[in-house]
Amino acid sequence: MSESVHDYMIRLGRAARDASRQLARVDTAQKNRALEAIAAALDASRAALIAANERDVANAQANGLQAAMVDRLALTAARIDDMIEGLRQVAKLPDPIGEIRDMRHLPSGIQVGKMRVPLGVVGIIYESRPNVTIDAASLCLKSGNATILRGGSEAIHSNQAIAHCVALGLAEAGLPAAAVQVVETTDREAVGALIGMPEFVDVIVPRGGKGLIERISRDAKVPVIKHLDGVCHVYIDKAADVEKAVRVADNAKTQRYSPCNAMETLLVHRAIASDVLPALATIYLEKGVELRGCPATCELLGQNVIAASEGDWFAEYNAPILAIRMVASLDEAIAHINHYGSHHTDAIVTEHFSDARRFLAEVDSSSVMVNASTRFADGFEYGLGAEIGISTDKLHARGPVGLEGLTSEKYVVFGNGHVRT
Amino acid sequence: MSESVHDYMIRLGRAARDASRQLARVDTAQKNRALEAIAAALDASRAALIAANERDVANAQANGLQAAMVDRLALTAARIDDMIEGLRQVAKLPDPIGEIRDMRHLPSGIQVGKMRVPLGVVGIIYESRPNVTIDAASLCLKSGNATILRGGSEAIHSNQAIAHCVALGLAEAGLPAAAVQVVETTDREAVGALIGMPEFVDVIVPRGGKGLIERISRDAKVPVIKHLDGVCHVYIDKAADVEKAVRVADNAKTQRYSPCNAMETLLVHRAIASDVLPALATIYLEKGVELRGCPATCELLGQNVIAASEGDWFAEYNAPILAIRMVASLDEAIAHINHYGSHHTDAIVTEHFSDARRFLAEVDSSSVMVNASTRFADGFEYGLGAEIGISTDKLHARGPVGLEGLTSEKYVVFGNGHVRT
Repeated sequence: MSESVHDYMIRLGRAARDASRQLARVDTAQKNRALEAIAAALDASRAALIAANERDVANAQANGLQAAMVDRLALTAARIDDMIEGLRQVAKLPDPIGEIRDMRHLPSGIQVGKMRVPLGVVGIIYESRPNVTIDAASLCLKSGNATILRGGSEAIHSNQAIAHCVALGLAEAGLPAAAVQVVETTDREAVGALIGMPEFVDVIVPRGGKGLIERISRDAKVPVIKHLDGVCHVYIDKAADVEKAVRVADNAKTQRYSPCNAMETLLVHRAIASDVLPALATIYLEKGVELRGCPATCELLGQNVIAASEGDWFAEYNAPILAIRMVASLDEAIAHINHYGSHHTDAIVTEHFSDARRFLAEVDSSSVMVNASTRFADGFEYGLGAEIGISTDKLHARGPVGLEGLTSEKYVVFGNGHVRT
Repeated sequence: MSESVHDYMIRLGRAARDASRQLARVDTAQKNRALEAIAAALDASRAALIAANERDVANAQANGLQAAMVDRLALTAARIDDMIEGLRQVAKLPDPIGEIRDMRHLPSGIQVGKMRVPLGVVGIIYESRPNVTIDAASLCLKSGNATILRGGSEAIHSNQAIAHCVALGLAEAGLPAAAVQVVETTDREAVGALIGMPEFVDVIVPRGGKGLIERISRDAKVPVIKHLDGVCHVYIDKAADVEKAVRVADNAKTQRYSPCNAMETLLVHRAIASDVLPALATIYLEKGVELRGCPATCELLGQNVIAASEGDWFAEYNAPILAIRMVASLDEAIAHINHYGSHHTDAIVTEHFSDARRFLAEVDSSSVMVNASTRFADGFEYGLGAEIGISTDKLHARGPVGLEGLTSEKYVVFGNGHVRT
């Protein structure tokens, strides 16, 4: 007699669509009240959250999950603080919804512009981090979208405990319960249903490893905001300031190795290679970074570098390994980045104004930088206040996605009984 | 020994990608020179264009094509004038590429903003109208995109003749030949290849009937800017000005029956129905429009209206048929539109300020209007200068799509050796 997973998901979808209609007429103050009330509910439920999380962590350990995954799963007091703080930060962000721009009178007499509106219903599919539940719910709520959240099965108790706090906050602010729904089943069929109902879901944001995202993108009947590879470059131009070049190339690689915006390949103009590469090699080797170079780099740096293969230029190491290639010109650098890169984030270090302009225009990446570390490619660093992810798509949202990426614009037309002739 | 269709398309794709890299560094003047040179080449090739088109028309007639399709296929002197004028209009439009907005200094010291850039390579799939070749090529070129154009097989000679003029214009302006490529084969496999190479094509814009667009959307591995149904509504609010209501509701239905932005269902508040519906019914019946009403409408209008079925509320007639429904409130009108409509274009006629605001915010359509005819939903009427189509998607471009819909924005970051800490 029990409901099938598919029917359950359809029910969530229909409820989300209905809730999205109600959210379309909710004002900023009410959305902010809900965010604050969810924060208060989390704060008041710390013991319950930690108890629920302990069950998940114990199960994960019993099932032999990797230590790194167990770490991502754990809800410490500090992580609960971060969730609460995150909610309050999102409450403080300007509300993008309802913004009207470019209202212009046209020769026919009508006035036309664009109004920013929610997308409608956002489906989030993520892995073991329970804090994503709050990050995603808060951004979707602030941008007027209903959300369906499908977290990893290993975090099910944590996510249900968080969902309980969200429900309390929504109720306190008078918002529909279906504004934020956390999927209660760990059945994998739920994912297939969620990405297969375009009548109820407007966009899917998968957050997790590349395998998850590729699978979802391939199977989804709903548009997906994707984040695939981060093969990021720093190009040290011949007109680079040496000190800035060393600082940026060091930071882009070594500040943290695993993020998608860390540099994977360093390109250096031949004319400046002997001024920057030996100093950089010393830094990298001291920090334990393995260097893989083109023939000219191997010749310059000697035994400190091993020969790179063709595959190295395409590699996203997410590890203390760096590919280094010398180039003869800006053109060669741009061609390398557009061919081998992943169109994520690429930087030039130069003091040459026109080369900088060319790099910005011609490198086909979601973030292009001059004299700054690729590690800045991040919603917080860009001043978005928060991010739901980094998009490697070109359509709709590109690069770090904040509230605006969760919205759409519609045309508004004002007349006074105007008709077309 | 001849090349397979698949290999041929891959070759076009690779050439288009290369050309798109070159277009990324072309300035506005050079793009405009190419548009003007193509216009001049068309003007100088009128006899050849008409001769090529006569072959297509003769074949179409011999193959028993419908008269309406043959009409769309025909290249008259006036249509050649329109293509030439279209090119010159696009040359006059402001260039969206390179526009930088919102450059802001952030606490870390970096400066971040967004720069408008081409999407890269646009694939256009269309049916028999040869003028689409020029419309689409000109918009893509102006927005810095390389294009691959796949027209209907019945227009192959016309399209090749146009392609020859395009090639002359590109060469004269010093742009790569592969900036605009017209597919030379009529093999259907070419469409499958074009929509299946995301490494070379960034977006597909299908132009044609719903069947074509659904098929392409379903099979494409490349994102598609879609145009599906246009089930448009006019809602006459109880606070409507009667004269404006009659004018708008007449125009929205009868100015032309076939466009997607023509009204298909008229909603009328009960309190004003007897003031507007009899007058409107007289107009519609004089113009030969069949009326299908809800029970209350049938009661009011008597034998002039037949009973509507549930299917009528979903119908896109594109014909002199109109469904009419009375509603008891603004809420009921909004719920009807969001449920039965296609999220294309919907209008309210009212003098009530707050009802107008609610309609704008809560009707989930790409164009929402107050006191204006739905027939205005069009790129030219909206002042876009031209349109590549009308999108019924919510992500990326929504509503009439002009140059901006063929672009993307990337983040630009300026530093002075800044690193992340």
